[in-house]
Amino acid sequence: MKAYLAEAVGTFWLVLGGCGSAVLAAAFPEVGIGLLGVSLAFGLTVLTMAYAIGHISGCHLNPAVTIGLWAGKRFDASQIIPYIVAQVVGGILGGGVLYLIATGQAGFDVAESGFATNGYAERSPGGYDLSAGFIAEVVMTMMFIVIILGATDKRAPQGFAPIAIGLGLTLIHLISIPITNTSVNPARSTGVAIFVGDGALTQLWMFWVAPIIGAILGAAIYRGISSESEG
Amino acid sequence: MKAYLAEAVGTFWLVLGGCGSAVLAAAFPEVGIGLLGVSLAFGLTVLTMAYAIGHISGCHLNPAVTIGLWAGKRFDASQIIPYIVAQVVGGILGGGVLYLIATGQAGFDVAESGFATNGYAERSPGGYDLSAGFIAEVVMTMMFIVIILGATDKRAPQGFAPIAIGLGLTLIHLISIPITNTSVNPARSTGVAIFVGDGALTQLWMFWVAPIIGAILGAAIYRGISSESEG
Amino acid sequence: MKAYLAEAVGTFWLVLGGCGSAVLAAAFPEVGIGLLGVSLAFGLTVLTMAYAIGHISGCHLNPAVTIGLWAGKRFDASQIIPYIVAQVVGGILGGGVLYLIATGQAGFDVAESGFATNGYAERSPGGYDLSAGFIAEVVMTMMFIVIILGATDKRAPQGFAPIAIGLGLTLIHLISIPITNTSVNPARSTGVAIFVGDGALTQLWMFWVAPIIGAILGAAIYRGISSESEG
Amino acid sequence: MKAYLAEAVGTFWLVLGGCGSAVLAAAFPEVGIGLLGVSLAFGLTVLTMAYAIGHISGCHLNPAVTIGLWAGKRFDASQIIPYIVAQVVGGILGGGVLYLIATGQAGFDVAESGFATNGYAERSPGGYDLSAGFIAEVVMTMMFIVIILGATDKRAPQGFAPIAIGLGLTLIHLISIPITNTSVNPARSTGVAIFVGDGALTQLWMFWVAPIIGAILGAAIYRGISSESEG
Repeated sequence: MKAYLAEAVGTFWLVLGGCGSAVLAAAFPEVGIGLLGVSLAFGLTVLTMAYAIGHISGCHLNPAVTIGLWAGKRFDASQIIPYIVAQVVGGILGGGVLYLIATGQAGFDVAESGFATNGYAERSPGGYDLSAGFIAEVVMTMMFIVIILGATDKRAPQGFAPIAIGLGLTLIHLISIPITNTSVNPARSTGVAIFVGDGALTQLWMFWVAPIIGAILGAAIYRGISSESEG
Repeated sequence: MKAYLAEAVGTFWLVLGGCGSAVLAAAFPEVGIGLLGVSLAFGLTVLTMAYAIGHISGCHLNPAVTIGLWAGKRFDASQIIPYIVAQVVGGILGGGVLYLIATGQAGFDVAESGFATNGYAERSPGGYDLSAGFIAEVVMTMMFIVIILGATDKRAPQGFAPIAIGLGLTLIHLISIPITNTSVNPARSTGVAIFVGDGALTQLWMFWVAPIIGAILGAAIYRGISSESEG
Repeated sequence: MKAYLAEAVGTFWLVLGGCGSAVLAAAFPEVGIGLLGVSLAFGLTVLTMAYAIGHISGCHLNPAVTIGLWAGKRFDASQIIPYIVAQVVGGILGGGVLYLIATGQAGFDVAESGFATNGYAERSPGGYDLSAGFIAEVVMTMMFIVIILGATDKRAPQGFAPIAIGLGLTLIHLISIPITNTSVNPARSTGVAIFVGDGALTQLWMFWVAPIIGAILGAAIYRGISSESEG
Repeated sequence: MKAYLAEAVGTFWLVLGGCGSAVLAAAFPEVGIGLLGVSLAFGLTVLTMAYAIGHISGCHLNPAVTIGLWAGKRFDASQIIPYIVAQVVGGILGGGVLYLIATGQAGFDVAESGFATNGYAERSPGGYDLSAGFIAEVVMTMMFIVIILGATDKRAPQGFAPIAIGLGLTLIHLISIPITNTSVNPARSTGVAIFVGDGALTQLWMFWVAPIIGAILGAAIYRGISSESEG
C-alpha cells in the first residue's frame, strides 16, 4: 500500500513539475525556459523522486516503465495493475493542481494553451504526422527502458541510476517535444488530457499503445545485449 | 555555534547566488541566462553548500526546511530558533552584498528591478493571484520536503542527497518563478525584501506562512509513504 | 557478440539523440533548445549509455575512442575492427530512424536542413576554414581521450566516469559546434553524412582523420602525465 | 613533474573550453549558447579535469585555488610557485589554441571580440564600476574556496567533490559574468589578456589581487565554521 501511495505522489510530481514548467514557464516573455527548461524539468521530476522514493516503490511513475520492468523480469505481474492505477490517479491529481494554479492568471485558457497535452498530426507542436509520432514514441520509450534496465543492473555502478534515468528522460524530451510534445508515459498524457478533452482525448490511445510497445521492445533489446539469464 | 555560522554562510550564498543571478544576469541583453539560468543558480547554491557544509550543520539554509526536518523527526526542536535566526541573518547579508554590487552599475534602481523579491497578484511576475501563489508555495515546499526526507533516508543511496535536493530546488524554480518568483524559503524572501520595502514587505507574510505549511504537509506525506517508524 | 550489439545500440542512440535534437528541436520557433540543448543532448546520450551498457561493452560508441583506448593500453587490438563496424552500423541506423521521423514533417528537406552533418569551410556553421576545423577536431578529441582515460583510471573515484565523460562531450559541443558542427566521432559523422551525400560525403575524410589523430595524441598525453606504467 | 604537467594540461582546457565557448559560441546567431552555456562550459572544464587528473595533481587549475588550499592547510608552500607557473603556462597555451581557431573565421577581430578577457568599468560587460568588480571577484573566489575546502573535507561524501566544485564554478559564472566577465582565476585572465593587450593587460592586476584576497578569506571562513584543527 505504501508503494502505491509513493507511486501516486511521484507521478503527481512528474505531471505537476514537467507539464507545469511547460504550461507556466516555457514561453514566459523574454526570459522563458523554452523546450530546454521543460526537458530539464521532466527529467528532474524523475531524478528527485528516484532518490526520494526509489527505496519505497522503485519509482516507476509510468505504466510503460512498469510493463517494461515486468517484461525485463524485474517486476512481478501481480503488481502491474495497482501500480498503473496509482500512477494514473497521481497524474490526474498533478494535472488538477496545475489547473488550479494556471487558472489563477487572468485570461488563461486551458484548451488554447494546449495544457502540455500530447498529440500528432494537427496536434503535433511541429506538425509531424501520425507515423512520425508513433515511431518516435515507440523508439524513445524503447531506449528509456534500455537505460532503466541497464542503469539498475547489478553490474552497473550503484546509486547512479536516478541520474542516468532522470537525465535520460531529459534527453528524450530534448529530441522529441516538437514531434508529439513527448509522452513515453501514458499516465503523464492522461493526467493532462482529461482537463483539455476533445482532440487530446481522441488522440490519447496512441500515448498508451506506442509507449507500451516501446517498453516491451526495450526489455527485449536489453535482455538481448546483456548476459543476464535472469534479472 | 559552528553550525549556526555555517547556516549563515550557506544562506548568504543562497541569496547572493540565486537572487544575484536573477538581478544581474537573467535579462542581460541578448545572451541573458533567463529563468532557466536562475533556476539552475538557486539549485546550485544548495548543491554546492550541501557538499561543503552538510557535514557541519546539515545545510538547511531555509526556515521551512528546518521546520520540515523537525516535523519529520530528523531535527531537534531546541535548535529551530537559532537555526532560523542564523538563516535570516545570512540571507540579509547576502541581500546586502548583492545590493553593493548591483548598485555599482550606473542607473540601477533597486525597487524598479524588483531585486528578486517574491510576490503575488500585482507583484507576481506573471500576474497570478494570491490563491494561485499560495497553493504553489505550499505544494512546492511540500514536495521539496518529500525530496529532502527521502533523499536523506538511510535506505536511499548515500552521498547523492545534495544532487537530488539541489536539482529539486532547480526544478521548483523551473515551474514556479512566473507565479511568485519562487520562494519556498522565508529567509531568501526576507533577505531581499528588506532592501526593497513597500509591497515586498507587506506581502512577505505569505512567504513565511505558505512554505511552513507546505513543509509540515511534506513531512506528513513522507512519513505516510515511508515505512519509517522513527527518523 | 553481445558487446558488438551493445556498441551498435549505443551508437544508434548517440546519433539519433544528438543529431536528432539538432535536426528536430534546435531551431524550433521561439522556444528552441539551441546549441546549448544540442550540446546537452549529445552528452546525455553518452552518460545514459555509459551507465546502461558500460558493463557490457565499455560503451565506446566512437571509433576514435576505441583507438584511443587501444593507444592508452586499455583495449585489445583484435577488437578494434569489430567495434568500429558495430559503431558505424549503429550510427547509420540512428541516422535512418531520424530520417524516418524528420521526413514526417511536411516540407522537410534533408539536404537543406544539413541533417546535423559535420563540415568545414563553406559547410562550417560559422564559416571556419579547414585549418581551424582540423585543429579543433584534433584538440577536442585529444582532450576527450584525456578525460576518458583519466576518469576511468583505477585511482579516480569509481562510478563517476559516465558523468565526466558524458558532460565532457557536452562541453566539447558547447565550444565547437560553430566550427565543424562538432564530430570528434567518425561514426556519428558517417551516420548522418550518407543521408545527405554530396559535400557531406566529400568532407567526411576529415571527421575520420582528425579525431583519430586527436585520440592517439590524447592517449600519449595521459600516459605522459599519469604515473601509469601499464593501464 | 607529472603534477605540473597535469596542471598545465588542465588549465589549458579551462581556458580553451571556458573562454572558447564564450568567444566561439555564446553569441552565435539565433541558437547561441548565451551566458548560461558559457557558465556551464567553465564549470565542466573543472568537473571533467577533476575526475581526469585529480588523482595526479589535485586539479587546482587556478593560482587562487592553490593559494587558498595552502591557506586552508591542505597544500605545501614549496609547491605554490611551480603550480602557479604551470597554470599560467597552460592558460596561455589555451589562449593560443583558441586564437588559432578563432582567427580561422573570416573577419574575426581579436580585440573587437573582447576574446573573453576580464575587465571593470568601461571593460565590464554590464558597465559595473571598479568597486563592484572588486567586491564580486573577492566574494566569488571566497565562496569558491569554501566549496572546495568543504567538498574535499574528509567528512564530506567521497567522490562527489568534482561535481560540487565544477558546478560551483558554473554558479559563480551565472552570477557574475555581467560584472567582470568572471575571473576568480588569475591564470584564466592572463591566458587571454596577453592576446588582446591594451586595457586587458592594464586591468589584469585586479584579477590577480582580488581572487587571491578572496581565496585567503575563504580559507579563513572554512576553518572558522568547520571543526578542523588541522586539514
